[in-house]
Amino acid sequence: MKKEIEVFMEEQNLDAIWISGASQNNPAMVYFTGIHHISAADLFIRRGQEPILFYHNMEREEAAKTGLQTASIDERYAFRKYMQSAQGDMLKASALLYQEMLTDLDIHEKTIAIAGRREVSVVYAILNALQELLPKVRFVGQFSGSVINRARLTKTPDEVEHIRRMGQITTSVVGRVAEMLSNSPVRHNILMAADEKPLTIGTVKSHIRKWLAEAGADSPEETIFAIGRDAGVPHSAGTETDVLELGKTIVFDIFPCEAGGGYFYDFTRTWCLGYAPDEVQRIYQEVFAVHQEVIDSVKLNTPFYASQALTCRMFREMGHATIEDDQNLLEGYVHSVGHGLGLDVHESPFSGIGSAAMDILRAGVVFTVEPGLYYPSKGFGVRIEDTVYLNEQGKTEILAEYPYELVLPMKAG
Amino acid sequence: MKKEIEVFMEEQNLDAIWISGASQNNPAMVYFTGIHHISAADLFIRRGQEPILFYHNMEREEAAKTGLQTASIDERYAFRKYMQSAQGDMLKASALLYQEMLTDLDIHEKTIAIAGRREVSVVYAILNALQELLPKVRFVGQFSGSVINRARLTKTPDEVEHIRRMGQITTSVVGRVAEMLSNSPVRHNILMAADEKPLTIGTVKSHIRKWLAEAGADSPEETIFAIGRDAGVPHSAGTETDVLELGKTIVFDIFPCEAGGGYFYDFTRTWCLGYAPDEVQRIYQEVFAVHQEVIDSVKLNTPFYASQALTCRMFREMGHATIEDDQNLLEGYVHSVGHGLGLDVHESPFSGIGSAAMDILRAGVVFTVEPGLYYPSKGFGVRIEDTVYLNEQGKTEILAEYPYELVLPMKAG
Repeated sequence: MKKEIEVFMEEQNLDAIWISGASQNNPAMVYFTGIHHISAADLFIRRGQEPILFYHNMEREEAAKTGLQTASIDERYAFRKYMQSAQGDMLKASALLYQEMLTDLDIHEKTIAIAGRREVSVVYAILNALQELLPKVRFVGQFSGSVINRARLTKTPDEVEHIRRMGQITTSVVGRVAEMLSNSPVRHNILMAADEKPLTIGTVKSHIRKWLAEAGADSPEETIFAIGRDAGVPHSAGTETDVLELGKTIVFDIFPCEAGGGYFYDFTRTWCLGYAPDEVQRIYQEVFAVHQEVIDSVKLNTPFYASQALTCRMFREMGHATIEDDQNLLEGYVHSVGHGLGLDVHESPFSGIGSAAMDILRAGVVFTVEPGLYYPSKGFGVRIEDTVYLNEQGKTEILAEYPYELVLPMKAG
Repeated sequence: MKKEIEVFMEEQNLDAIWISGASQNNPAMVYFTGIHHISAADLFIRRGQEPILFYHNMEREEAAKTGLQTASIDERYAFRKYMQSAQGDMLKASALLYQEMLTDLDIHEKTIAIAGRREVSVVYAILNALQELLPKVRFVGQFSGSVINRARLTKTPDEVEHIRRMGQITTSVVGRVAEMLSNSPVRHNILMAADEKPLTIGTVKSHIRKWLAEAGADSPEETIFAIGRDAGVPHSAGTETDVLELGKTIVFDIFPCEAGGGYFYDFTRTWCLGYAPDEVQRIYQEVFAVHQEVIDSVKLNTPFYASQALTCRMFREMGHATIEDDQNLLEGYVHSVGHGLGLDVHESPFSGIGSAAMDILRAGVVFTVEPGLYYPSKGFGVRIEDTVYLNEQGKTEILAEYPYELVLPMKAG
């Protein structure tokens, strides 16, 4: 949680954190500012001091809405004067500007962790130029164990409410899609649209986009709505022109966020239209059993990797190949069982091969549970996913309940 | 254009470009791959060779859709073996992986420009760790004059078509908003919604989001729909709860992109509902005159800054303060007259104080023309913006025409 930042900074010997970029679609920045229409800002968090946000005049109203201590870049650091000193060299001018800003903030000889989702080329250029001007400053890049990631690992009740609200929006859109499919007329085993043409995945996705937008949600990455063989490839987004055929499995994985880059939700159901072949039913039951067992067996303060180990063990006993045995696997259980979720759709804790010392299921974590089995050569895949919150008492809660029926009944016949 | 990349790499003594991150919402990557559902990839462009895209198995179908030469990371660079060598240190494991990849590509002792929109903290950490393993490699950060930005400065006919299509979507949504406002009933000078309550900016924006999504567009940054005093602050996004009052100016600045982070369009109109006060009419005519003059006076192969100088001169002669005289200005003409547009809403060429040697209006540039005057203390602001293409013959073309009426007539009375 945010209040832990000071402690983590001390542990990692950081004097300051410098987050740059927009205050939209920029998780590290949004974590401190909320979502606001600021296209370029610099936020400094110095140990023991209030954060300070530098903004440009045009965005003064939006900067004020953050409620943070703010300062105008244009007022004290007018770019023109640095451009003059740098004889029109923009990179040099930017470095001169930040040299003065860091000096004013008294961190020009300190250890500063950098953060922010931006074009890395620009940041790398500025940091290198700035390092030459300020030889004593130490810039630190941080991997998954960064202080901000460590803070974001556990959520406040307010953050959980944001995620829960996104869960309600997500499941309500999923319900509308189910209703639309169930009520579509069927001809020669194919679902039809109102215009007497087959309903396509492209059309379904266009409805999903519209319904999400109406509800104030963005879908920064494309929703997965994949049928048949495509459903057997976990990250295949689906083919726009594909039609919807009875008895084929559909993997519907939807992971929208609050508009502007806020909190996410992540959710998957697998459906068969009208009926499900025996083999798909059996595989579905296996995946569902693992899904339930993983949620039930979560233990407070244990590594998330234990859930992956459990999943691999269960699937292996059922006779499936798993990624634990072969990282290059294409059929069977080919991914990890879940990941943390918040301002990023994938964030700490991680459960897979990349999980590390910090990937512990502490009280307050929000994570997905999403076992799946994939058989593209047989023309299907199955995944079931919910987003789960682990509370102080070690109890798991699915943040948006939704039924687990495999077969979507066709009502229009 | 993309075909210039080789020449620019040679000019800047670069052996390779390394673009990393997703192939969505990542302009440098999307420029080469198109928009695909790939969440983590590495693209290498080596001088004189075909680009090669490294992907993870789960995303093999999406990687194949790029049409590029591809290679599986999991097949040759299974993360587990590096995690074992690095004894579970993820950063070190990543560095070991890339050490092997760069060596296989024979660029481990070369000069490599880095690019991609990602969390900078992670990239900075990896590059520093990698530099220790590969002391002879030289990583280069690039500012606005990067080879990719230089290529992106001029558009191919196909890129122009993408932008034109976004222009059609944008102006069609603007038309729907105008129609909705014009047809709203008015009570006590306030526009009313269907539910007998005043129509709010929040409701208008929710319609805009829905209509854009329906048309296959994203709005990664919030649309500006600001009335009265808010309209006087260029980047104020508007206040959700504000009602729409006759005679007040509305600045409506909309800049969506193709879903997933494709090409943008950027467009602004200023409207008064029912009638416009004399002062606003006069200011509107002044802004419109500058808008027309700037478009008419564009000359092929001249600096874009000339348009800004012209704008400042015209506004100054009309009696307004300009940013040329004071970079910290809050009233008058407070920003630059335009910017290039493509896979970023703001990209080269730039016209303001940050414009540089490369900001030349070459044949094929697409840019905005958006003069404005802002008087928040008087409760209004005016901006008019179109997106313009400059062709081989030096002729400018507005990519989506839309009327310039200031007053939106109220039809429902």
